[in-house]
Amino acid sequence: MSQPNRPRDEFALIEKVTAQLKKVRQEQTVVANGDDAAVFLPGQGKAQVVALDTMVEGVHFTRQTMQPHQIGHKVLASNLSDLAAMGAQPTFFLVSLAVSPEWSEEELEEIYGGMGRLAEAFRVELLGGDTVSAPRHLVISVTAIGEVDPTVKLLRRSAQAGHKVFVTGWLGLAAAGLDLLLKGSLDGKKSVYAPLLEAHQEPWPHVKEGLLIAQGAQHEAVALNDVSDGLASEANEIARASGVDLVLEKEKLPVHPLLYRYAVERGKDPYRWVLAGGEDFVLVGTASSEVLSRISELFAREGLSLFEIGRVEKGEGRVWLEEKGGRRLLPQEGYNHFNKRGQ
Amino acid sequence: MSQPNRPRDEFALIEKVTAQLKKVRQEQTVVANGDDAAVFLPGQGKAQVVALDTMVEGVHFTRQTMQPHQIGHKVLASNLSDLAAMGAQPTFFLVSLAVSPEWSEEELEEIYGGMGRLAEAFRVELLGGDTVSAPRHLVISVTAIGEVDPTVKLLRRSAQAGHKVFVTGWLGLAAAGLDLLLKGSLDGKKSVYAPLLEAHQEPWPHVKEGLLIAQGAQHEAVALNDVSDGLASEANEIARASGVDLVLEKEKLPVHPLLYRYAVERGKDPYRWVLAGGEDFVLVGTASSEVLSRISELFAREGLSLFEIGRVEKGEGRVWLEEKGGRRLLPQEGYNHFNKRGQ
Repeated sequence: MSQPNRPRDEFALIEKVTAQLKKVRQEQTVVANGDDAAVFLPGQGKAQVVALDTMVEGVHFTRQTMQPHQIGHKVLASNLSDLAAMGAQPTFFLVSLAVSPEWSEEELEEIYGGMGRLAEAFRVELLGGDTVSAPRHLVISVTAIGEVDPTVKLLRRSAQAGHKVFVTGWLGLAAAGLDLLLKGSLDGKKSVYAPLLEAHQEPWPHVKEGLLIAQGAQHEAVALNDVSDGLASEANEIARASGVDLVLEKEKLPVHPLLYRYAVERGKDPYRWVLAGGEDFVLVGTASSEVLSRISELFAREGLSLFEIGRVEKGEGRVWLEEKGGRRLLPQEGYNHFNKRGQ
Repeated sequence: MSQPNRPRDEFALIEKVTAQLKKVRQEQTVVANGDDAAVFLPGQGKAQVVALDTMVEGVHFTRQTMQPHQIGHKVLASNLSDLAAMGAQPTFFLVSLAVSPEWSEEELEEIYGGMGRLAEAFRVELLGGDTVSAPRHLVISVTAIGEVDPTVKLLRRSAQAGHKVFVTGWLGLAAAGLDLLLKGSLDGKKSVYAPLLEAHQEPWPHVKEGLLIAQGAQHEAVALNDVSDGLASEANEIARASGVDLVLEKEKLPVHPLLYRYAVERGKDPYRWVLAGGEDFVLVGTASSEVLSRISELFAREGLSLFEIGRVEKGEGRVWLEEKGGRRLLPQEGYNHFNKRGQ
């Protein structure tokens, strides 16, 4: 790619730090990284899916909460998670890196290393990108591209009354992991709570799960989101976009034993993290009982988790949390960057 | 797109600031902005072209050198210019915006407004993006997507001995414009030197020129780059990638009368800007005489400029500047971000 005032050394640097990523090459690539733009041939009859996510030092991570390879891993993971929520097969990605002087060349290599290992696991090719200087803070932005059968539409507006609500994994672990990093003491607990830390630092995108859901849907209506902003937030989005109510049954919500243990230790309600904790990158969706049993079977064959956590009712786009004896409205509860601006 | 800790208000903000961009809708769009990822159908038999460019406050612009709408215009223009250098027809773009508290909602609207007007001119659809907070400095990154016939390959490695070297417009204006903004006095000169300022602040990507060059090439070898880093730098890239020497003939280099006038006023050599000034976003390329005369004819019909500025010789990947009586080696001379790191 070209860049105003592109540094000469940038080519050498990027050549070096991306050398480890060159293992993945798609047959579809016509012109890879290194000309003005990259060129690829889309798969015959396939729709193209594009996602773009950005992580900023001091907002989404700090040097205290994330190591360089984890930053690289996570920003690519969050993009692959977006593709997963559309039932897409990831193919390519591009990276924009704005680097401040505090970051060494070795750290940039580690960032690309983290991306590279995840890219290899999912056979995604680095197609290009841009590296520029920044006065302060690292800003890393990834654009991921994937393919999907044009008939697959796992949209958030597809929830229907009578559907079941499901999630593809444990909830709240990433938020508890962040809490542990920021407020807890890691002495002697790092190995015990490793799954919480890993959920925050190196989340695994549910690409395989998304593909199986698309397969199980067989063109019937399935709503799907990735849980990047917390279950309450994503459920509200589906409810609002579909014009239905979602009823989450509290006793069906999956609470990981370690999350429960850590919550007790911290004197906190584990459901706060299960409902409002973000960045879990599991998928939440709705499907008819029939479709859901097809999906369950596909998941069981692969040894993947699937939790039914509630149901869809006629309504006005709201989310309810149901407990023995009653239900209460569950607000969106998303953490809000823009409300924090100016602080 | 989803985003770790995505702000709730972000949706409302982005809805508002992008309202003005919603005019362009491609028929190919399946799922636009607003789900986890965007989905589109590639044109039948078309290769997809992807470019990614980033602009950082304090590095590529300041509030003194660029107004918000110009920032939006320019970051999209630099991406469209990358597509132009591949002979592609732009179709979609995505925007990543990391915003610090100093930037008001009105200014964000203006940034999107600048992008929107350029997007409309080229019928490019905003397909999605991500907006996040940043502690300091604005970082704006655009991913642009375009389409091209898979047989069109306007690569920098395609220069051949015997080819002519050409550019599609005036050179050095953007660099002179930046000089005027930083060091000159604008009193009473703003209107005189408007073309210099415009070249820096609102460059026009040569998309039409790129399409005509692809058409004129008729599958014969044509090398093409956009002049984002200055003529010397881009010519060196073509020479090196192709393993040939490029000879630029000084008296054929186009010097705009206003650039000449401003250089005299500043006591500078105008060729410094013509050869090393970046961000002009015109195209530089090489083609056989036969192909070049086809391209010239296509350009003439559309009233577009085309300057033949030199020739390609057998060599070792170097660039020569030829003047009466001799030639001297022309180094890459690119301004280097990374050499400036740590200052």
